[in-house]
Amino acid sequence: MSETDVPVVDFAPDRWGNPEHAITLPAATQAALDALGIRPGRAPVDLQDVALPDVVVPDEARTALAAAVGPAHVSDAAHDRLRHTRGWSTPDILKMRAGDAGDAPDLVVRPGSHDEVVAVLQVCADAHVAVVPYSGGTSVVGGLAPDRAGFAGVVALDLARLDALVVLDVVSRTATLQAGMRGPRAEELLQAEGYTLGHFPQSYEGASIGGYAAARSAGQSSAGYGRFDDMVVGLVVATPRGTLEIGTAPQSAAGPDLRQLVLGSEGAFGVITSVTVRLRRVPRERVFEGWRFPSFESGAEALRRLAQDGPLPTVLRLSDEAETAINLSDPSGGPTGEASGCLAITGYEGEPDDVASRRAAASAVIEECGGVAVGTDAGERWRTGRFHGPYLRDPLLDAGAFVETLETVTWWSNVARLKAAVTEAVQASLGAQGTPAIVLCHVSHVYETGASLYFTVACAQGEDALGQWAEAKAAANAAIRRAGAAISHHHGVGTDHRDTYDEEIGPLGRDILRAVKATLDPTGVLNPGVLVAR
Amino acid sequence: MSETDVPVVDFAPDRWGNPEHAITLPAATQAALDALGIRPGRAPVDLQDVALPDVVVPDEARTALAAAVGPAHVSDAAHDRLRHTRGWSTPDILKMRAGDAGDAPDLVVRPGSHDEVVAVLQVCADAHVAVVPYSGGTSVVGGLAPDRAGFAGVVALDLARLDALVVLDVVSRTATLQAGMRGPRAEELLQAEGYTLGHFPQSYEGASIGGYAAARSAGQSSAGYGRFDDMVVGLVVATPRGTLEIGTAPQSAAGPDLRQLVLGSEGAFGVITSVTVRLRRVPRERVFEGWRFPSFESGAEALRRLAQDGPLPTVLRLSDEAETAINLSDPSGGPTGEASGCLAITGYEGEPDDVASRRAAASAVIEECGGVAVGTDAGERWRTGRFHGPYLRDPLLDAGAFVETLETVTWWSNVARLKAAVTEAVQASLGAQGTPAIVLCHVSHVYETGASLYFTVACAQGEDALGQWAEAKAAANAAIRRAGAAISHHHGVGTDHRDTYDEEIGPLGRDILRAVKATLDPTGVLNPGVLVAR
Repeated sequence: MSETDVPVVDFAPDRWGNPEHAITLPAATQAALDALGIRPGRAPVDLQDVALPDVVVPDEARTALAAAVGPAHVSDAAHDRLRHTRGWSTPDILKMRAGDAGDAPDLVVRPGSHDEVVAVLQVCADAHVAVVPYSGGTSVVGGLAPDRAGFAGVVALDLARLDALVVLDVVSRTATLQAGMRGPRAEELLQAEGYTLGHFPQSYEGASIGGYAAARSAGQSSAGYGRFDDMVVGLVVATPRGTLEIGTAPQSAAGPDLRQLVLGSEGAFGVITSVTVRLRRVPRERVFEGWRFPSFESGAEALRRLAQDGPLPTVLRLSDEAETAINLSDPSGGPTGEASGCLAITGYEGEPDDVASRRAAASAVIEECGGVAVGTDAGERWRTGRFHGPYLRDPLLDAGAFVETLETVTWWSNVARLKAAVTEAVQASLGAQGTPAIVLCHVSHVYETGASLYFTVACAQGEDALGQWAEAKAAANAAIRRAGAAISHHHGVGTDHRDTYDEEIGPLGRDILRAVKATLDPTGVLNPGVLVAR
Repeated sequence: MSETDVPVVDFAPDRWGNPEHAITLPAATQAALDALGIRPGRAPVDLQDVALPDVVVPDEARTALAAAVGPAHVSDAAHDRLRHTRGWSTPDILKMRAGDAGDAPDLVVRPGSHDEVVAVLQVCADAHVAVVPYSGGTSVVGGLAPDRAGFAGVVALDLARLDALVVLDVVSRTATLQAGMRGPRAEELLQAEGYTLGHFPQSYEGASIGGYAAARSAGQSSAGYGRFDDMVVGLVVATPRGTLEIGTAPQSAAGPDLRQLVLGSEGAFGVITSVTVRLRRVPRERVFEGWRFPSFESGAEALRRLAQDGPLPTVLRLSDEAETAINLSDPSGGPTGEASGCLAITGYEGEPDDVASRRAAASAVIEECGGVAVGTDAGERWRTGRFHGPYLRDPLLDAGAFVETLETVTWWSNVARLKAAVTEAVQASLGAQGTPAIVLCHVSHVYETGASLYFTVACAQGEDALGQWAEAKAAANAAIRRAGAAISHHHGVGTDHRDTYDEEIGPLGRDILRAVKATLDPTGVLNPGVLVAR
């Protein structure tokens, strides 16, 4: 699959990603589950049979919404409402599998322009109808399940019609993209002109430009292309009070950088309707390869040296021993045939000379740290399979297993402590519940001063899988907080992380966010309860 | 002069920089002034003879301040008050030369810890005394001249005692520096451990860590080391409501980046008391060289190519034809002996191999764009003289000339238009006032998407030099606004740019800033009128 040929698809609310990419469990995995005594639980409720809550948006507001966007673009069809219910986290999927559509919006509204978004927000503010900005719908932190208490209904504001490339400035090398454009479409349009964003998060097939910005997305090539918040040079935001347009210049000393206040605001301050991003040239050369380190520590040391003193590959990631041992993308286990040690992936993109020289210099650093090359096949397997991993979750859930991920980020001097603390907290919680877990970890994003840690947790599904995970996740959150790390590196805050985030930024930080929200959204209709508590 | 041997000096309030570095006018410059009929105006008022306004801070508040920081650290001495009056802009200097100390603080308060800063702010909030956070005192945009109307006096909160290196984390490669530490001291302490910030703004001899952060400083090596706001990973901020501590991790997806809200807040939201910054290794190799381009356009094209496709030198700047023609750092005019075309400076710092390869590749790009090498002597002259230029202003003012600078930043596709618009606006204004001006320009900071423009304006001093410049500056600001550029790339907003900045960010942007200020500084005592209008 190339990065641009993903078609527009009808994403389902009860599974990950594009239904056409669904997979079945590898036989070895099924055998392992059998050996552990893990058996399928209840079959999921068919989407046709999921009961939707009554539509409660008042007729007057509905009429006003229809006037704002045209009657054809306001829907209360079950199909639309279900497809705008929650996101892609395991709890979200489990709820839908159990037939719970309690968070479904009353209406799905599809504005066709920025001005129509402003009009919709004004209607909703007047009618006290909550608004969930919706573009990719890929949140894994409860970012699409607002607290509806006290509101006269909930509208999903779907930005899918806002999918134009508005401006391409080849001299400044920027593009203005509307917020509802999904990643693959953006790459298709930009690559046709010789440019790329280079932004490939794992949710790439579904996620959108507006979501990247609202949730501070970080793509798998962040070492080379930067995080999405590094790429954004301008934003247009619709709020109930009108339009906020920010980003006068690449960088300036004219006050705080308000772009960085909107980035990560998760629809709670306003609805991002377009984003101006910096572009890079489509790389002429691309090399991905695998490395094996004797330990996570030696691998992390190599990543740190590359991040601090260079040269930095375009992609740089390191799996720990546990993840390496069961890494399905490299079942051969490298040259020795044993899945020992820690697998790392390096990728280089750019002009051929540049790729060659960076690769040579980085390889020397990696070898000094004990890395052994396992070839480009391992790199290519990772690259071509990189969006496939999450598709394993659905058959695992079918088979009675539980699987979910969580992630965090800290300073280099704190990485080992944080990794141990989170692993132990999750294992202790799930062990005590009678469902001992395996916890896998990788580093997928590096900075000069620190790195992200991404954990995959798998265990048997308990009777109350939601409660089971809630307890383990709370333990993980507390461990992250105690270790002084950030509650999310790239998943965001949503509702799931809100309370821990609140502790992280402290009372004055929270008051700042509340003041900004009150300024832009005085009646509090935007994604209520997401990011900041009501 | 090395970058670390600048001693602590007693900066004077009526001239630029370190008095020991004062210079006299070159004979050629004096001859040019003579030929233009420019004659010395009134001699400056001796500082001894400058009348200070009465101290109006109530005794009760003064007693409370003495209790907060110790009586020895509260001063109303004329020497202290004068040295905390305004900053380093030409209007600031002209006012002091005219004997106007109307903006002098009543008291200079020197807290010795973060907690003492909080205590001072609480005293001032209770007593409705305005507070001017003061560390380097180098503002050139009126950032130290708050609107005192309605306040029971003004306190200059001098952070000079907060000058410790608090933490050095060599693994994460970060340092926590207190805000009052000046740049040279920071380099002295860090370089002793093998690290550098690489931050060298033109105000380097006087400016401080806190000021760098509060005003979003950009140093002359920004291409290689980044802007100061790129370096900051954490901040501790004292506010009248207590402490705000931000920066949990290098980057995260946990909400907006609140660091970027404090950076550029210019003391209006709180007082930055310490900053955690990322460090780089002290470079082992350093090469600076000069290039001559046939035109500004060809030079700008080279800079753009290097910024967009690399490799990026550590220092990269380009003077226009006018600046090149009178460039005192290169009086020889390069190999032909003629100061024609446009002089560019490239500098490379790092490991020897890296310097060599970046230099070779960048030189090839420069030559493709028409650049001709003029050797490392020109580069070294620029490097060793880079803090000296502003010292020319004092003897020029003595000689009856007027000189001031202004700067802005825009997208690459707008650079030529912006340069012409600002130049024409300033020349038209000063020409109409009977004091035709020369306007010099250079690019000193480049980004993938755009570049800064820095203008130096010189003309005869009119009878009312302040009014003369106010008119020209207003014309420049309006031109910048019309061209869609930012009102400041690295000088900041202060009071001088506040109204134009207000237009730049629009009503919702302004409301956000006001809401944040009201949250952290409910009684509005912090730098009133700076950044946002009262």
